Amino acid sequence: MRVKHKKWAEPLLEAHPEKMVMDPETVKGHWEDRFEKNQPIQLEVGMGKGQFIIGMAKKYPDINFIGLEIEKTVAAIALKKALPEELPNLQFICADGAELTDFFEDHQIDRLFLNFSDPWPKKRHTKRRLTYHTFLAGYEQVLKKQGTIELKTDNMGFFEFSLLSMNNYGMKYDGVWLDLHNSDENEQNVETEYEHKFSEKGQPIYKLKAHFDN
Amino acid sequence: MRVKHKKWAEPLLEAHPEKMVMDPETVKGHWEDRFEKNQPIQLEVGMGKGQFIIGMAKKYPDINFIGLEIEKTVAAIALKKALPEELPNLQFICADGAELTDFFEDHQIDRLFLNFSDPWPKKRHTKRRLTYHTFLAGYEQVLKKQGTIELKTDNMGFFEFSLLSMNNYGMKYDGVWLDLHNSDENEQNVETEYEHKFSEKGQPIYKLKAHFDN
Ligand SMILES: C[S@@+](CC[C@H](N)C(=O)[O-])C[C@H]1O[C@@H](n2cnc3c(N)ncnc32)[C@H](O)[C@@H]1O
Ligand SMILES: C[S@@+](CC[C@H](N)C(=O)[O-])C[C@H]1O[C@@H](n2cnc3c(N)ncnc32)[C@H](O)[C@@H]1O
Repeated sequence: MRVKHKKWAEPLLEAHPEKMVMDPETVKGHWEDRFEKNQPIQLEVGMGKGQFIIGMAKKYPDINFIGLEIEKTVAAIALKKALPEELPNLQFICADGAELTDFFEDHQIDRLFLNFSDPWPKKRHTKRRLTYHTFLAGYEQVLKKQGTIELKTDNMGFFEFSLLSMNNYGMKYDGVWLDLHNSDENEQNVETEYEHKFSEKGQPIYKLKAHFDN
Repeated sequence: MRVKHKKWAEPLLEAHPEKMVMDPETVKGHWEDRFEKNQPIQLEVGMGKGQFIIGMAKKYPDINFIGLEIEKTVAAIALKKALPEELPNLQFICADGAELTDFFEDHQIDRLFLNFSDPWPKKRHTKRRLTYHTFLAGYEQVLKKQGTIELKTDNMGFFEFSLLSMNNYGMKYDGVWLDLHNSDENEQNVETEYEHKFSEKGQPIYKLKAHFDN
């Protein structure tokens, strides 16, 4: 996500070590200490400004949520939004989603969300797509056996790629929606910032639910 | 496909045993006798009025094509259209696609086409969809190892179902297109009757290419 660099961003991140993890390698093996209750963990990779993961944390108090974002300024915007909510079941990480296996023990995550991931449409950038097989291998390692990935996007090319990549990796699909907002699946849907923007323009939202078959 | 019963249909079918097979069980094991040349066989299940399979037979003389259709009147319309073309690499079957294994030996078919199959949107009709797992089992048996299925449709619900069903069966995807007519894949595309009708209305056409992973 491109946002203008904000001067207050880094100081805010540093000022809230209770909520924002800047060195997730050091928390590996101790995530339960960072939450009030010991309960299943769900993770969003590329949370952007955090609307979705904050909404999920409010809606499902019996689940622990972690929002991960690589861009400091963007992570700081999410943090700013989350602080007044005082959610004991929400934590943030500012780091690269390519390195999940350094942050989490194997099979620790219950569910993983990929919302409106950068599509990287150029062929030479394929490896950067968050559903490229190297990323899937990381997700597989940190997800519980049979743990699911839920992906939403407005981007047709990225969705086509993800359907192909996740199928070729050997994942099993639990659901495919080519127009989420006009489907039953929408009843329990929590919107993201991008989702709101694109669906307002009348674009269809795609969704895929899948699990590793291991 | 709903078409008005035509009086001339059955007599025409009976008058052309050289082109139209009404009892495909009896041809099992002898398909090569019905073609001028011994070359790979590709099959369309539910060919409708035949525009696609006739177009393919003209375009690819080095492949043998078979169009299968369950409705006699519809099959007769296809036959009427094909006769003047005198294509030695095209044969028709009027029978039920649920019984392919009675018509073909194992691993005899190179490629199988499903174009704009009846969507059967009601849940209680799921089993009738041509991508229901019982149909897939038949396709798997008659298709060559690694043989592909190519599916096109305008129907979102049927496409969602097929993506799920073919993935869950264990098939591997070779390509997914959510707007075929605005993609590179369209260059070599041969249109069907339904495709022409729906794409003229501006509806996107979905396509899936997949193979059995055996
Ligand atoms: C297009 S935005 C979508 C944000 C949010 N999920 C939404 O739906 O509104 C994608 C976000 O993913 C972040 N991102 C991209 N690659 C990442 C990576 N490797 N690790 C973590 N975050 C990443 C970007 O910085 C950006 O904020
Ligand atoms: C909606 S039409 C599409 C026709 C053509 N493929 C096209 O794209 O224009 C579907 C056709 O499949 C035929 N069909 C349905 N179930 C079938 C089955 N089990 N075996 C053979 N044909 C079937 C129907 O009779 C109908 O003609």
